Amino acid sequence: MTATTEATSRNGVDVATLFATLDAVSTQKEIASFQFRASNTWVNGTHSRTTFDGFYGAMQELEHQHVTEVESDHPAVLVGQDEAPSPVEYVLHAIAACLTAGIANVAAARGVQLTKVSSTVEGDIDLLGILGLSDGSVRNGYQQIKVTFHIEGDADDATLRGLVDQSRRRSAVYDVLTQPTPVEIEVVTG
Amino acid sequence: MTATTEATSRNGVDVATLFATLDAVSTQKEIASFQFRASNTWVNGTHSRTTFDGFYGAMQELEHQHVTEVESDHPAVLVGQDEAPSPVEYVLHAIAACLTAGIANVAAARGVQLTKVSSTVEGDIDLLGILGLSDGSVRNGYQQIKVTFHIEGDADDATLRGLVDQSRRRSAVYDVLTQPTPVEIEVVTG
Repeated sequence: MTATTEATSRNGVDVATLFATLDAVSTQKEIASFQFRASNTWVNGTHSRTTFDGFYGAMQELEHQHVTEVESDHPAVLVGQDEAPSPVEYVLHAIAACLTAGIANVAAARGVQLTKVSSTVEGDIDLLGILGLSDGSVRNGYQQIKVTFHIEGDADDATLRGLVDQSRRRSAVYDVLTQPTPVEIEVVTG
Repeated sequence: MTATTEATSRNGVDVATLFATLDAVSTQKEIASFQFRASNTWVNGTHSRTTFDGFYGAMQELEHQHVTEVESDHPAVLVGQDEAPSPVEYVLHAIAACLTAGIANVAAARGVQLTKVSSTVEGDIDLLGILGLSDGSVRNGYQQIKVTFHIEGDADDATLRGLVDQSRRRSAVYDVLTQPTPVEIEVVTG
């Protein structure tokens, strides 16, 4: 049993399941239609709380193994109470976590054993945009985001860099940030 | 003391501080240059952990009131262990939290007392993109994101809708999602 597990798992990724998933989706493409969801409730001031519980995927309603709650607030210098990271900081988490998951998957598929993957993300933003103090030349969002990876494993420099590159090419969050994504907002009052 | 607090605070937003901040930034625009940061560490498989501690803003290095850690993983149907919400789900949190903070601020500035703001966010994604099983016509990221707000307060329907609209116009995360954001990736190996 142990030998079998070791043979199919690398970097904590079950390689057999990874390829079986790709095969299954190739055969039945409806499996790949997902809808992720989040429910947010205003707490007070700029402080709110989001719950993640269920999502749709693989042709069925699914529940996470456990419900997760996260909170956001503005920092004190932005008229918040700093009860939690600001919304824009979660975007930095999302890009780092997405690329890192991809690196582990690609490494597993390519037979590379990783020993370390860490990253720092920096997002530069000029708040003249969101404060409405710009003449329109300053955007509301990040002007640029920089991700710096430190990666180690049993492969040469070019192979390790290749993992990051392939992860970027297949990253959902990288695409969401670098290409326009339609966002529709509906409002129900009263 | 209580009377003063009540007079300057609405929806948990200190209105005097809000306007003072706008005045200060108008006078010295360097205050508005911020850099937010996140540090991510790979745990195992598609599971990673992000720490938020410090950021730069208002012309100084700043620390959050407390350090926050969040985790991401892929769901089991995506070859993960489902230890935490997926990276793309945090994007849904970010847009909800950003718009909600803005709604509270705009309401405070406009003299509207809110009694409830909640939202659900749905992000549709076809995983043929990230799985590399598309002919290139399916994007990696969300095809669309829909945010549905339920909002109540001491104002009429049009005024409440106007709060959401103004928040959208000044939202950092809405801009990051709907307009392309440059993402640079640097890799250090070994």
